[in-house]
Amino acid sequence: MKVLITGGAGFLGNKLAIALSKKGSCADATGHQVAIDEIVMLDHVEARIVPEGCRSVIGDVADPDVLESVIDEDTAVVFHLAAVVSGEAEENFDLGMRVNLDATRLILERCRSLRTRPKVLFASSVAAFGPEDGAITGKTPNRPLTSYGTQKAIAELLLNDYARKGFIQGIAFRLPTVVVRPGRPNRAASSFASSILREPLSGQKMTCPVRRDVGVWLTSPRSIVSAFIHGADLDLEKLGNWRTLNLPGLTVSLEEMVEALIRKGGDANLISWELDPAVQKIVDTWPVAFETPEATALGFVTDNSIDDVIDIFLTEDL
Amino acid sequence: MKVLITGGAGFLGNKLAIALSKKGSCADATGHQVAIDEIVMLDHVEARIVPEGCRSVIGDVADPDVLESVIDEDTAVVFHLAAVVSGEAEENFDLGMRVNLDATRLILERCRSLRTRPKVLFASSVAAFGPEDGAITGKTPNRPLTSYGTQKAIAELLLNDYARKGFIQGIAFRLPTVVVRPGRPNRAASSFASSILREPLSGQKMTCPVRRDVGVWLTSPRSIVSAFIHGADLDLEKLGNWRTLNLPGLTVSLEEMVEALIRKGGDANLISWELDPAVQKIVDTWPVAFETPEATALGFVTDNSIDDVIDIFLTEDL
Repeated sequence: MKVLITGGAGFLGNKLAIALSKKGSCADATGHQVAIDEIVMLDHVEARIVPEGCRSVIGDVADPDVLESVIDEDTAVVFHLAAVVSGEAEENFDLGMRVNLDATRLILERCRSLRTRPKVLFASSVAAFGPEDGAITGKTPNRPLTSYGTQKAIAELLLNDYARKGFIQGIAFRLPTVVVRPGRPNRAASSFASSILREPLSGQKMTCPVRRDVGVWLTSPRSIVSAFIHGADLDLEKLGNWRTLNLPGLTVSLEEMVEALIRKGGDANLISWELDPAVQKIVDTWPVAFETPEATALGFVTDNSIDDVIDIFLTEDL
Repeated sequence: MKVLITGGAGFLGNKLAIALSKKGSCADATGHQVAIDEIVMLDHVEARIVPEGCRSVIGDVADPDVLESVIDEDTAVVFHLAAVVSGEAEENFDLGMRVNLDATRLILERCRSLRTRPKVLFASSVAAFGPEDGAITGKTPNRPLTSYGTQKAIAELLLNDYARKGFIQGIAFRLPTVVVRPGRPNRAASSFASSILREPLSGQKMTCPVRRDVGVWLTSPRSIVSAFIHGADLDLEKLGNWRTLNLPGLTVSLEEMVEALIRKGGDANLISWELDPAVQKIVDTWPVAFETPEATALGFVTDNSIDDVIDIFLTEDL
């Protein structure tokens, strides 16, 4: 079988490719582990690391011809991670619609046209929710207040309908904020949630654009990669009528992250606090408290503590 | 100002055109009533009745050139009623996506391109909900189990984001099943809910494809037309962050509808009960009980009873 990872050159896509390459197999429609012949890493840039059995393909995820070339009858699993991040989708509405919505629909259409019902695992986001009273549950409505969140919520609806119609097998994960992202800050409004740990741990200065009491619903890259691999091995037919899961995570305030940073030997004086009202406004629309019994019941897990999250970064990425 | 009604040749669109023509004005952005210069009734067929001040335009609502010709700088209000109905959208997935999703997005894009922030009033549906425990409220998630419901839920999300971004002013109404629809049965899975009254009241036979205990969340065409006109006069900026309303209605079982039919002199013996599992399956996914305090607080109303709903049909349509 073949596997496609969109956004394959991104840090999550790359980690997923490494983990899949190491595992070497994925469950087929009957639940049996089948060897992966090839992992295609599609992205608009070349993948920095191309693990064994993987192929980096440079192409536009919203181009039907590109999708036709990377998804064929042998493609059993599509991990759809490519996205324009929240801050950028808010600034550049058309680009967000194209990548976050149109590309997802084109992927679903390409899979439908093959009549092989490939598995599509979609990286949605907790940004699909707006601010709500109380904890977010599996029954909280999607009332996002960003274009990114809107596009993710729409993509979830599409995936659910394509799966219900039998065009694909599918599952959408609403990802907590992934901390610690390795690399450099990006244009996600949540970029600070990684920078506040990553930069001081690397001996670099960092400017935090939001208040100390901001809470973040987060999980480590390792948990996310495990979730996608676990999801691909699940019998997706058993999910029932609704195929969107809020993944487990931890609620941690920036203040608590700074305390953990100090425990791990980081220098908190490298952080300067300069409020950016535009970022704070976006972050204020994100919910912080979640209850995720559905995902837990299906075997999805998160990290034990923010200290563990930092340890994963120190071990795997620094 | 100009007004556009998509689906203008449909029974609701036609009734709305008649009511708007009689009223002669609509609120502008500042809340002042401004005379309507022209009401364009766009549909794929010619409108049967073209009231004074109205113009019937035959065209494809999913064709950008058609939309460019019927929405311009003078278009202050768009009533977007055109849709592929539930049964047909389930059978013909691509047609449903094109009309229910693509056309809505094209309308929003055309409005955005004008930079005049026209009001867009969108006819969504309670089919945007799946089966849920308890009554549907303003905080119930959209987990539709039909392609029609999926497309409506997506269109709501788009409208909300376009309004939030300031591209348009907008409101989406989740319409109860409209009873009694005049005319002939259509391919909506809910078509029986009108036929069960309309046909016997017209002395005609009717075959009911679902069980007697099926409940229907319904309202009269008159209430819907009033809701759209009231909505166009509202200051949509005051709606806050979420611009989708569940409209008020009545929960009535088919058994209760038959009892009311008899009270109004109809012959219940004209109804034969022949279960169609395909229709029953779709109808089983529709919620029946609603709480709509948000709409009531904004001045939206429904009918007093199923008897009143029948009287409206007898007075206006038969």
